[in-house]
Amino acid sequence: MAHEIHLDPWADLYATRMSNMKGSAIRAMMGSAEIPGMIALAGGLPNTKPIGLDDVVRATRETMKAEGGTALQYGSSEGHKGLKRHIIKLMAEEGVTVDYDDFILTQGSQQALDLVARTFIDVGNRIIVEAPSYVGALQATSGYQPDYLQIRMDDDGMVVDELAVALKKLGPRSAKFIYVVPNFHNPAGVTLPLERRKRLIELAREYELLIFEDNPYGRLRYEGEDIPSLRSMDENVMYTSTFSKIFSPGMRIGWIIAPHPILDKIVIGKQASDLCSSNFAQMVLEHYFDRNLWQKNIEQLRDVYRSRRDAMIAALEEFFPEGTSWTKPAGGFFLWATLPEYLDSSEMLAEAIENKVSYVPGNAFYADGSGAHHMRLAFCYEDEEKITEAIKRLGKVIKGQMALAKSLLIKE
Amino acid sequence: MAHEIHLDPWADLYATRMSNMKGSAIRAMMGSAEIPGMIALAGGLPNTKPIGLDDVVRATRETMKAEGGTALQYGSSEGHKGLKRHIIKLMAEEGVTVDYDDFILTQGSQQALDLVARTFIDVGNRIIVEAPSYVGALQATSGYQPDYLQIRMDDDGMVVDELAVALKKLGPRSAKFIYVVPNFHNPAGVTLPLERRKRLIELAREYELLIFEDNPYGRLRYEGEDIPSLRSMDENVMYTSTFSKIFSPGMRIGWIIAPHPILDKIVIGKQASDLCSSNFAQMVLEHYFDRNLWQKNIEQLRDVYRSRRDAMIAALEEFFPEGTSWTKPAGGFFLWATLPEYLDSSEMLAEAIENKVSYVPGNAFYADGSGAHHMRLAFCYEDEEKITEAIKRLGKVIKGQMALAKSLLIKE
Repeated sequence: MAHEIHLDPWADLYATRMSNMKGSAIRAMMGSAEIPGMIALAGGLPNTKPIGLDDVVRATRETMKAEGGTALQYGSSEGHKGLKRHIIKLMAEEGVTVDYDDFILTQGSQQALDLVARTFIDVGNRIIVEAPSYVGALQATSGYQPDYLQIRMDDDGMVVDELAVALKKLGPRSAKFIYVVPNFHNPAGVTLPLERRKRLIELAREYELLIFEDNPYGRLRYEGEDIPSLRSMDENVMYTSTFSKIFSPGMRIGWIIAPHPILDKIVIGKQASDLCSSNFAQMVLEHYFDRNLWQKNIEQLRDVYRSRRDAMIAALEEFFPEGTSWTKPAGGFFLWATLPEYLDSSEMLAEAIENKVSYVPGNAFYADGSGAHHMRLAFCYEDEEKITEAIKRLGKVIKGQMALAKSLLIKE
Repeated sequence: MAHEIHLDPWADLYATRMSNMKGSAIRAMMGSAEIPGMIALAGGLPNTKPIGLDDVVRATRETMKAEGGTALQYGSSEGHKGLKRHIIKLMAEEGVTVDYDDFILTQGSQQALDLVARTFIDVGNRIIVEAPSYVGALQATSGYQPDYLQIRMDDDGMVVDELAVALKKLGPRSAKFIYVVPNFHNPAGVTLPLERRKRLIELAREYELLIFEDNPYGRLRYEGEDIPSLRSMDENVMYTSTFSKIFSPGMRIGWIIAPHPILDKIVIGKQASDLCSSNFAQMVLEHYFDRNLWQKNIEQLRDVYRSRRDAMIAALEEFFPEGTSWTKPAGGFFLWATLPEYLDSSEMLAEAIENKVSYVPGNAFYADGSGAHHMRLAFCYEDEEKITEAIKRLGKVIKGQMALAKSLLIKE
């Protein structure tokens, strides 16, 4: 890195936070998607095919007719009421009663992550995260330089008993918040059962801690029954979701619900960040949602994603060697594969890319950089045939790496 | 405030930065715009009337046709190339040669302010700002808790000689950056002459300091000749501008040019903040700009704003009492009025609102909270008749306050 510092005459000027922040491993990999023949299991790109393009044009026309120049003007920092109306309905369907002033709109839920981090974290403050955790949340929080307490996950999400043990030692108010993705976890693909949710809420109450619930995939369940959100069980829970997975990430509209005093702080952060979200995008979204097209879209999406998930699991069973395992997601976009501990999926990535298949190495999802023997495989983007082919290629790469490791072991 | 703390069970959890950050005085005032009969000289709302609403619908139709589902998908963190093409042309017209990888798109230029602050400022680091300075820049930076060095302005913008005196004492690398709005300053309405620009660049070189140039209003000149931007004189200058004033703030698209190593850091901050800007908004903007309609719009806007400025200055001459003064902006949105030092425009605001006219008190624009005997008057939003009436009402309020102050003085 000495080389790089030499080239950068401003290296001594950067804030210390910049040395904590890494570029997104996932975003960096997006370039590889353009290599011909590449099958991308890396990015979590939603399928936008069910969206009628004419319907978007129509929603724009209706926006211009109904809102006129207002759609082209600055909006409120809290968000456009017309769109909030739809979110109130969406949340009610999930058993969460909110009114207009209980939440604000954000630039995707990524901005909600940033704003919560900004509101609470001073350098060295503790926050509690799952291990693995959503890489975008680690990115958003890392700039505020917290101390991460990682709680292990198993096939039922965060092992809440281990959180209880940790909190017993640490005592009340010992963290700024607990960040969780209870449904169809990114990257782990697992879901927190009702009993653990209840226990988590109890612990938060007992130790006077805030919970921050991130629920982008809640509507993308492919089997089984919905489980109540944490926010539906406790009004002190901060909750974020987004239109990115039920409609389009290209609009960049998410929302965050929080207790009023906290929301007031979040709004101040929103003003400092970007004044307000795009009135134009909010209003087009509003008029699109006026026609309830999204419900039919999402039924289609569930069928598409379920079938792709099934194809990936079938291929894993056929092509991945003994000594590997994976989660069986009941929804969402991702499946989490575990390799023998002696393999490093970030080192293996170059060979995978050579074989024209991409994934995200597991260590991207750990605050402490561990977890390299895991890999995140996205089943949302490619079709069944390509998924099968990609897993076949990956299985071959893994087998090769396992054989290589064994031969080195024998030599030693 | 003890009352408020009592009501907020999370008051002890907020980051220390939150006590530095205030809600925007301007955004808070937006509510008052809805009072019937109110004449708003507070907010800097651009006039969006020249934009043909059908043209926006057409640009959306063309976007859907040309880009398909890509417009609804996640975009790159750096921004959409098709729109960057137009920015490259815009910058070339201003004498600034940039290529695609020399800048990124941001969520309005407000996000550029936040990202630069995020990149450079640790708690207690010095940054140099004008006094007065753009309130949005003070908001964006305040969350990073810098130490502000304010440099006085006169009718020719920042008094660069006073900066020289300060730097002589402080030495090289004594601040993270110097933030300036050289054209039609917000709030001061003044413009930095060429000689001062050259001297500022020299000082930055001599003391190894970065300059951050904010130029939202550069294209809105109503008389005189354009002056070269700081960025056109030195490639090390960071530069931000926006589509908000030449087209629509409702799209929330701005851009920032910076030396490559700095830009790499800014991109990481962008990813952490919101992953990427809206592909949809970027592409609609691209297709709108493909037809070059904005140039005719902006000619119209210049005529509209010039005439409103003239109306405001004529009304000030007629209705403001002796002992007050104001700047004569050659462009932009704002004029800066100065009252006798014993008057407090933030205290006076309630009476002004009662008389159905709003403005922004001067102290909102000073890092140290001084400047309350100034006021920012926006001439961009209301028409000539209303501006004249508003200044008449304001003149009356000021005269009343002056008389009151005098009578109190006599009593004492």
